[in-house]
Amino acid sequence: MNRPQPIEKMVEIIKKLPGVGPKMAERLSYHILEMSQGEVDRLLDSIQKARQTMKNCSVCYNLSEHDPCPVCSDSAKERDILCVVETPQDLIAVSRVKEYKGLYFVLGGALSPLDAVGPNDIRVEKLIKRLKSDTISEVIIATDTDSKGEITAVYLAEIIKKLNIKVTRLGYGLPVGGDIEYADEVTISRAISGRQEM
Amino acid sequence: MNRPQPIEKMVEIIKKLPGVGPKMAERLSYHILEMSQGEVDRLLDSIQKARQTMKNCSVCYNLSEHDPCPVCSDSAKERDILCVVETPQDLIAVSRVKEYKGLYFVLGGALSPLDAVGPNDIRVEKLIKRLKSDTISEVIIATDTDSKGEITAVYLAEIIKKLNIKVTRLGYGLPVGGDIEYADEVTISRAISGRQEM
Repeated sequence: MNRPQPIEKMVEIIKKLPGVGPKMAERLSYHILEMSQGEVDRLLDSIQKARQTMKNCSVCYNLSEHDPCPVCSDSAKERDILCVVETPQDLIAVSRVKEYKGLYFVLGGALSPLDAVGPNDIRVEKLIKRLKSDTISEVIIATDTDSKGEITAVYLAEIIKKLNIKVTRLGYGLPVGGDIEYADEVTISRAISGRQEM
Repeated sequence: MNRPQPIEKMVEIIKKLPGVGPKMAERLSYHILEMSQGEVDRLLDSIQKARQTMKNCSVCYNLSEHDPCPVCSDSAKERDILCVVETPQDLIAVSRVKEYKGLYFVLGGALSPLDAVGPNDIRVEKLIKRLKSDTISEVIIATDTDSKGEITAVYLAEIIKKLNIKVTRLGYGLPVGGDIEYADEVTISRAISGRQEM
Protein backbone atom coordinates (compact mmCIF):
# COMPACT_ATOMS: atom_id res chain seq x y z
CA MET A 1 0.00 0.00 0.00
CA ASN A 2 1.14 3.52 -0.75
CA ARG A 3 0.38 6.69 1.12
CA PRO A 4 -3.22 7.84 0.64
CA GLN A 5 -3.46 10.52 -2.07
CA PRO A 6 -4.22 13.53 0.21
CA ILE A 7 -1.18 12.72 2.38
CA GLU A 8 0.95 12.08 -0.70
CA LYS A 9 0.01 15.50 -2.06
CA MET A 10 0.81 17.23 1.24
CA VAL A 11 4.20 15.44 1.37
CA GLU A 12 4.97 16.43 -2.24
CA ILE A 13 4.25 20.11 -1.54
CA ILE A 14 6.08 20.24 1.80
CA LYS A 15 9.07 18.48 0.17
CA LYS A 16 9.58 21.54 -2.04
CA LEU A 17 10.28 23.82 0.94
CA PRO A 18 13.98 24.68 1.31
CA GLY A 19 16.00 22.22 3.39
CA VAL A 20 13.16 19.70 3.62
CA GLY A 21 13.93 16.23 2.24
CA PRO A 22 11.44 13.41 1.50
CA LYS A 23 11.69 11.81 4.96
CA MET A 24 11.38 15.17 6.72
CA ALA A 25 8.36 16.03 4.54
CA GLU A 26 6.72 12.73 5.50
CA ARG A 27 7.45 13.29 9.18
CA LEU A 28 6.06 16.84 9.09
CA SER A 29 2.94 15.72 7.18
CA TYR A 30 2.01 12.96 9.63
CA HIS A 31 2.76 15.29 12.52
CA ILE A 32 0.40 17.90 11.06
CA LEU A 33 -2.30 15.21 10.74
CA GLU A 34 -1.90 14.39 14.43
CA MET A 35 -1.92 18.00 15.66
CA SER A 36 -5.04 19.34 17.36
CA GLN A 37 -7.32 21.54 15.28
CA GLY A 38 -6.28 24.50 17.46
CA GLU A 39 -2.59 23.92 16.73
CA VAL A 40 -3.21 23.62 12.99
CA ASP A 41 -5.33 26.79 13.04
CA ARG A 42 -2.54 28.67 14.81
CA LEU A 43 0.00 27.43 12.24
CA LEU A 44 -2.11 28.37 9.22
CA ASP A 45 -3.23 31.68 10.76
CA SER A 46 0.33 32.73 11.52
CA ILE A 47 1.29 32.08 7.88
CA GLN A 48 -1.70 33.94 6.48
CA LYS A 49 -1.37 36.84 8.91
CA ALA A 50 2.33 37.27 8.15
CA ARG A 51 1.63 37.14 4.41
CA GLN A 52 -1.14 39.72 4.73
CA THR A 53 0.60 42.21 7.02
CA MET A 54 4.21 42.13 5.88
CA LYS A 55 4.90 44.48 2.99
CA ASN A 56 8.08 45.79 1.39
CA CYS A 57 9.02 49.24 2.67
CA SER A 58 8.88 51.57 -0.35
CA VAL A 59 12.19 53.19 0.66
CA CYS A 60 14.51 50.30 1.56
CA TYR A 61 12.38 47.22 0.61
CA ASN A 62 12.74 45.77 4.09
CA LEU A 63 9.76 43.62 5.18
CA SER A 64 7.60 45.58 7.60
CA GLU A 65 4.06 46.15 8.77
CA HIS A 66 4.60 49.88 8.20
CA ASP A 67 5.66 51.95 5.20
CA PRO A 68 8.19 53.48 5.56
CA CYS A 69 9.59 50.79 7.86
CA PRO A 70 10.77 51.58 11.45
CA VAL A 71 14.39 51.73 10.28
CA CYS A 72 13.78 54.26 7.50
CA SER A 73 11.58 56.42 9.74
CA ASP A 74 14.09 56.36 12.63
CA SER A 75 15.31 59.97 12.96
CA ALA A 76 18.40 58.85 14.89
CA LYS A 77 19.87 57.20 11.78
CA GLU A 78 22.72 58.70 9.78
CA ARG A 79 20.95 59.28 6.50
CA ASP A 80 23.98 59.74 4.23
CA ILE A 81 25.33 56.21 4.62
CA LEU A 82 23.61 53.21 3.03
CA CYS A 83 24.18 49.50 3.63
CA VAL A 84 23.10 47.29 0.71
CA VAL A 85 22.02 43.77 1.69
CA GLU A 86 20.53 40.84 -0.19
CA THR A 87 17.58 40.00 2.08
CA PRO A 88 15.49 41.34 4.98
CA GLN A 89 17.15 38.70 7.20
CA ASP A 90 20.55 40.20 6.34
CA LEU A 91 19.22 43.66 7.25
CA ILE A 92 18.20 42.38 10.69
CA ALA A 93 21.62 40.76 11.19
CA VAL A 94 23.49 44.00 10.33
CA SER A 95 21.07 46.15 12.35
CA ARG A 96 22.06 44.25 15.51
CA VAL A 97 25.51 45.85 15.24
CA LYS A 98 25.47 49.06 17.29
CA GLU A 99 28.50 50.54 15.45
CA TYR A 100 26.44 50.94 12.28
CA LYS A 101 23.93 53.80 12.42
CA GLY A 102 23.15 54.27 8.73
CA LEU A 103 20.27 53.26 6.50
CA TYR A 104 19.69 50.18 4.34
CA PHE A 105 18.68 48.94 0.93
CA VAL A 106 17.42 45.37 0.37
CA LEU A 107 18.32 44.07 -3.11
CA GLY A 108 16.01 41.07 -2.92
CA GLY A 109 18.67 38.59 -3.99
CA ALA A 110 22.02 38.48 -5.72
CA LEU A 111 23.15 38.35 -9.34
CA SER A 112 23.64 34.81 -10.57
CA PRO A 113 24.63 34.43 -14.23
CA LEU A 114 24.37 30.62 -13.99
CA ASP A 115 20.75 30.84 -12.79
CA ALA A 116 19.97 33.62 -15.28
CA VAL A 117 19.39 36.12 -12.47
CA GLY A 118 20.38 39.49 -13.89
CA PRO A 119 20.24 43.12 -12.70
CA ASN A 120 16.57 43.35 -13.70
CA ASP A 121 15.67 40.45 -11.38
CA ILE A 122 16.95 42.27 -8.30
CA ARG A 123 16.50 45.95 -7.34
CA VAL A 124 19.55 47.46 -9.07
CA GLU A 125 17.46 50.05 -10.92
CA LYS A 126 15.68 51.09 -7.70
CA LEU A 127 19.00 51.35 -5.85
CA ILE A 128 20.45 53.67 -8.51
CA LYS A 129 17.28 55.79 -8.39
CA ARG A 130 17.62 56.16 -4.64
CA LEU A 131 21.32 57.02 -4.84
CA LYS A 132 20.50 59.73 -7.35
CA SER A 133 17.61 61.24 -5.37
CA ASP A 134 19.03 61.01 -1.83
CA THR A 135 22.29 62.51 -0.58
CA ILE A 136 24.41 59.44 0.08
CA SER A 137 28.11 59.82 0.79
CA GLU A 138 28.97 56.14 1.22
CA VAL A 139 27.49 52.81 0.21
CA ILE A 140 28.56 49.75 2.21
CA ILE A 141 27.95 46.62 0.18
CA ALA A 142 27.01 43.79 2.55
CA THR A 143 26.08 41.04 0.13
CA ASP A 144 26.91 37.45 1.07
CA THR A 145 30.52 36.37 0.64
CA ASP A 146 29.68 33.51 -1.72
CA SER A 147 30.30 33.83 -5.47
CA LYS A 148 26.87 35.35 -6.19
CA GLY A 149 27.34 37.96 -3.49
CA GLU A 150 30.83 38.78 -4.76
CA ILE A 151 29.65 39.16 -8.37
CA THR A 152 26.85 41.43 -7.15
CA ALA A 153 29.26 43.52 -5.06
CA VAL A 154 31.69 44.03 -7.94
CA TYR A 155 28.85 44.86 -10.34
CA LEU A 156 27.27 47.39 -7.97
CA ALA A 157 30.62 48.96 -7.00
CA GLU A 158 31.34 49.82 -10.61
CA ILE A 159 27.95 51.48 -11.10
CA ILE A 160 28.03 53.36 -7.79
CA LYS A 161 31.57 54.69 -8.30
CA LYS A 162 30.37 56.32 -11.53
CA LEU A 163 27.90 58.29 -9.40
CA ASN A 164 30.89 59.66 -7.44
CA ILE A 165 29.81 57.90 -4.24
CA LYS A 166 32.33 56.12 -2.03
CA VAL A 167 31.75 52.32 -2.10
CA THR A 168 32.99 49.94 0.56
CA ARG A 169 32.55 46.23 1.07
CA LEU A 170 32.28 44.39 4.38
CA GLY A 171 35.68 42.81 4.55
CA TYR A 172 37.61 41.84 7.60
CA GLY A 173 36.17 39.07 9.72
CA LEU A 174 33.61 37.53 7.46
CA PRO A 175 34.22 33.84 6.75
CA VAL A 176 34.44 33.30 2.99
CA GLY A 177 31.62 31.26 1.45
CA GLY A 178 29.28 32.14 4.29
CA ASP A 179 25.81 33.55 4.61
CA ILE A 180 25.66 37.00 6.24
CA GLU A 181 22.47 36.30 8.13
CA TYR A 182 24.17 33.48 10.07
CA ALA A 183 27.18 35.58 11.10
CA ASP A 184 27.44 36.63 14.73
CA GLU A 185 27.43 40.26 15.87
CA VAL A 186 31.15 40.42 16.61
CA THR A 187 32.04 39.12 13.16
CA ILE A 188 29.74 41.62 11.47
CA SER A 189 31.03 44.40 13.73
CA ARG A 190 34.64 43.62 12.78
CA ALA A 191 33.69 43.43 9.14
CA ILE A 192 32.18 46.92 9.35
CA SER A 193 35.16 48.54 11.06
CA GLY A 194 37.54 46.76 8.67
CA ARG A 195 35.57 47.62 5.54
CA GLN A 196 37.59 48.37 2.43
CA GLU A 197 37.09 50.79 -0.42
CA MET A 198 36.33 49.08 -3.71
CA MET B 1 16.00 45.75 15.04
CA ASN B 2 14.25 42.46 15.71
CA ARG B 3 12.04 40.47 13.42
CA PRO B 4 8.62 42.08 12.91
CA GLN B 5 6.03 40.53 15.21
CA PRO B 6 4.00 38.64 12.54
CA ILE B 7 7.19 36.99 11.24
CA GLU B 8 8.37 36.31 14.79
CA LYS B 9 5.09 34.55 15.55
CA MET B 10 5.28 32.44 12.39
CA VAL B 11 8.88 31.46 13.23
CA GLU B 12 7.89 30.55 16.81
CA ILE B 13 5.08 28.27 15.62
CA ILE B 14 7.07 26.64 12.81
CA LYS B 15 9.95 26.05 15.26
CA LYS B 16 7.72 23.69 17.23
CA LEU B 17 7.39 21.28 14.30
CA PRO B 18 9.49 18.11 14.74
CA GLY B 19 13.04 18.33 13.44
CA VAL B 20 12.82 22.09 12.78
CA GLY B 21 15.37 24.25 14.62
CA PRO B 22 15.35 28.05 15.02
CA LYS B 23 17.42 28.74 11.88
CA MET B 24 15.36 26.31 9.80
CA ALA B 25 12.16 27.94 11.09
CA GLU B 26 13.44 31.37 10.09
CA ARG B 27 14.46 30.12 6.66
CA LEU B 28 11.08 28.48 6.08
CA SER B 29 9.20 31.57 7.29
CA TYR B 30 10.98 33.99 4.97
CA HIS B 31 10.64 31.50 2.13
CA ILE B 32 6.88 31.32 2.73
CA LEU B 33 6.72 35.13 2.66
CA GLU B 34 8.43 35.10 -0.74
CA MET B 35 6.29 32.35 -2.27
CA SER B 36 3.62 33.32 -4.79
CA GLN B 37 0.04 33.43 -3.53
CA GLY B 38 -0.71 30.35 -5.67
CA GLU B 39 2.08 28.37 -4.05
CA VAL B 40 0.96 29.35 -0.55
CA ASP B 41 -2.64 28.46 -1.39
CA ARG B 42 -1.53 25.03 -2.61
CA LEU B 43 0.47 24.47 0.60
CA LEU B 44 -2.36 25.49 2.93
CA ASP B 45 -5.02 23.69 0.84
CA SER B 46 -3.04 20.44 0.87
CA ILE B 47 -2.80 20.61 4.67
CA GLN B 48 -6.48 21.41 5.14
CA LYS B 49 -7.63 18.82 2.61
CA ALA B 50 -5.49 16.09 4.18
CA ARG B 51 -6.80 17.02 7.65
CA GLN B 52 -10.40 16.95 6.44
CA THR B 53 -10.31 13.74 4.41
CA MET B 54 -7.97 11.49 6.39
CA LYS B 55 -9.77 9.58 9.14
CA ASN B 56 -8.80 6.64 11.33
CA CYS B 57 -10.15 3.35 10.01
CA SER B 58 -12.54 2.05 12.68
CA VAL B 59 -11.11 -1.48 12.36
CA CYS B 60 -7.30 -1.00 12.31
CA TYR B 61 -6.95 2.79 12.98
CA ASN B 62 -4.90 3.24 9.83
CA LEU B 63 -5.28 6.71 8.27
CA SER B 64 -7.54 6.49 5.23
CA GLU B 65 -10.13 8.35 3.19
CA HIS B 66 -12.39 5.30 3.55
CA ASP B 67 -13.76 3.38 6.52
CA PRO B 68 -12.91 0.53 6.65
CA CYS B 69 -9.60 1.32 4.98
CA PRO B 70 -8.46 -0.41 1.75
CA VAL B 71 -6.28 -2.84 3.73
CA CYS B 72 -9.09 -4.00 6.05
CA SER B 73 -11.55 -4.32 3.16
CA ASP B 74 -9.10 -6.26 0.95
CA SER B 75 -10.59 -9.75 0.62
CA ALA B 76 -7.20 -11.21 -0.40
CA LYS B 77 -5.80 -10.67 3.11
CA GLU B 78 -5.29 -13.51 5.58
CA ARG B 79 -7.69 -12.41 8.26
CA ASP B 80 -6.42 -14.55 11.15
CA ILE B 81 -3.01 -12.89 11.43
CA LEU B 82 -2.56 -9.40 12.81
CA CYS B 83 0.48 -7.14 12.69
CA VAL B 84 0.53 -4.51 15.46
CA VAL B 85 2.37 -1.30 14.55
CA GLU B 86 2.86 2.05 16.29
CA THR B 87 1.92 4.42 13.46
CA PRO B 88 0.24 4.55 10.02
CA GLN B 89 3.70 5.16 8.51
CA ASP B 90 4.86 1.85 10.02
CA LEU B 91 1.82 0.12 8.52
CA ILE B 92 2.78 1.41 5.06
CA ALA B 93 6.38 0.23 5.55
CA VAL B 94 5.30 -3.29 6.55
CA SER B 95 2.64 -3.45 3.82
CA ARG B 96 5.36 -3.05 1.16
CA VAL B 97 6.63 -6.51 2.11
CA LYS B 98 4.93 -9.04 -0.14
CA GLU B 99 5.61 -11.98 2.23
CA TYR B 100 3.14 -10.57 4.74
CA LYS B 101 -0.51 -11.00 3.76
CA GLY B 102 -2.24 -10.43 7.09
CA LEU B 103 -4.12 -7.54 8.64
CA TYR B 104 -2.95 -4.68 10.87
CA PHE B 105 -3.62 -2.75 14.03
CA VAL B 106 -2.23 0.75 14.60
CA LEU B 107 -1.54 1.47 18.29
CA GLY B 108 -1.08 5.19 17.81
CA GLY B 109 2.21 5.32 19.70
CA ALA B 110 4.22 3.31 22.19
CA LEU B 111 4.23 3.01 25.97
CA SER B 112 6.70 5.39 27.59
CA PRO B 113 6.77 5.38 31.40
CA LEU B 114 9.22 8.32 31.43
CA ASP B 115 6.84 10.48 29.39
CA ALA B 116 3.82 9.23 31.36
CA VAL B 117 2.39 7.51 28.27
CA GLY B 118 0.48 4.51 29.59
CA PRO B 119 -1.81 1.83 28.10
CA ASN B 120 -4.75 4.26 28.16
CA ASP B 121 -2.88 6.73 25.95
CA ILE B 122 -2.49 4.23 23.12
CA ARG B 123 -5.06 1.74 21.75
CA VAL B 124 -4.35 -1.22 24.02
CA GLU B 125 -8.00 -1.54 25.09
CA LYS B 126 -9.20 -1.44 21.46
CA LEU B 127 -6.62 -4.05 20.45
CA ILE B 128 -7.81 -6.45 23.17
CA LYS B 129 -11.42 -5.89 22.11
CA ARG B 130 -10.53 -6.73 18.52
CA LEU B 131 -8.59 -9.85 19.53
CA LYS B 132 -11.59 -11.03 21.53
CA SER B 133 -14.16 -10.38 18.78
CA ASP B 134 -12.17 -11.53 15.70
CA THR B 135 -10.61 -14.95 15.16
CA ILE B 136 -6.90 -14.20 15.30
CA SER B 137 -4.40 -17.06 15.46
CA GLU B 138 -1.22 -14.97 15.58
CA VAL B 139 -0.24 -11.44 16.50
CA ILE B 140 3.04 -10.12 15.09
CA ILE B 141 4.26 -7.21 17.19
CA ALA B 142 6.06 -4.74 14.92
CA THR B 143 6.71 -1.87 17.29
CA ASP B 144 9.94 0.10 16.90
CA THR B 145 13.11 -1.48 18.27
CA ASP B 146 13.89 1.41 20.61
CA SER B 147 13.21 1.14 24.34
CA LYS B 148 9.61 2.39 24.09
CA GLY B 149 8.82 -0.09 21.34
CA GLU B 150 10.40 -2.92 23.34
CA ILE B 151 8.46 -2.04 26.51
CA THR B 152 5.27 -1.94 24.47
CA ALA B 153 6.04 -5.29 22.85
CA VAL B 154 6.70 -7.01 26.17
CA TYR B 155 3.59 -5.47 27.73
CA LEU B 156 1.35 -6.50 24.83
CA ALA B 157 2.85 -9.98 24.57
CA GLU B 158 1.90 -10.75 28.15
CA ILE B 159 -1.69 -9.64 27.66
CA ILE B 160 -2.12 -11.40 24.32
CA LYS B 161 -0.67 -14.69 25.54
CA LYS B 162 -3.37 -14.76 28.21
CA LEU B 163 -5.93 -14.74 25.40
CA ASN B 164 -4.29 -17.96 24.09
CA ILE B 165 -3.11 -16.27 20.91
CA LYS B 166 0.36 -16.88 19.53
CA VAL B 167 2.52 -13.73 19.81
CA THR B 168 5.62 -13.08 17.76
CA ARG B 169 7.95 -10.12 17.48
CA LEU B 170 9.79 -8.93 14.38
CA GLY B 171 13.27 -10.06 15.19
CA TYR B 172 16.00 -10.96 12.77
CA GLY B 173 17.35 -8.18 10.62
CA LEU B 174 16.06 -5.08 12.34
CA PRO B 175 18.81 -2.73 13.47
CA VAL B 176 18.46 -2.06 17.20
CA GLY B 177 17.50 1.48 18.18
CA GLY B 178 15.92 2.08 14.79
CA ASP B 179 12.61 3.35 13.56
CA ILE B 180 10.58 0.76 11.64
CA GLU B 181 9.26 3.23 9.11
CA TYR B 182 12.79 3.93 7.86
CA ALA B 183 13.73 0.28 7.43
CA ASP B 184 14.06 -1.04 3.88
CA GLU B 185 11.89 -3.82 2.48
CA VAL B 186 14.54 -6.52 2.66
CA THR B 187 15.24 -5.79 6.32
CA ILE B 188 11.53 -5.91 7.18
CA SER B 189 11.09 -9.04 5.07
CA ARG B 190 13.92 -10.80 6.94
CA ALA B 191 12.51 -9.65 10.24
CA ILE B 192 9.16 -11.20 9.37
CA SER B 193 10.56 -14.58 8.31
CA GLY B 194 12.85 -14.62 11.36
CA ARG B 195 10.13 -13.59 13.81
CA GLN B 196 10.31 -15.19 17.25
CA GLU B 197 7.65 -16.32 19.66
CA MET B 198 7.50 -14.21 22.82
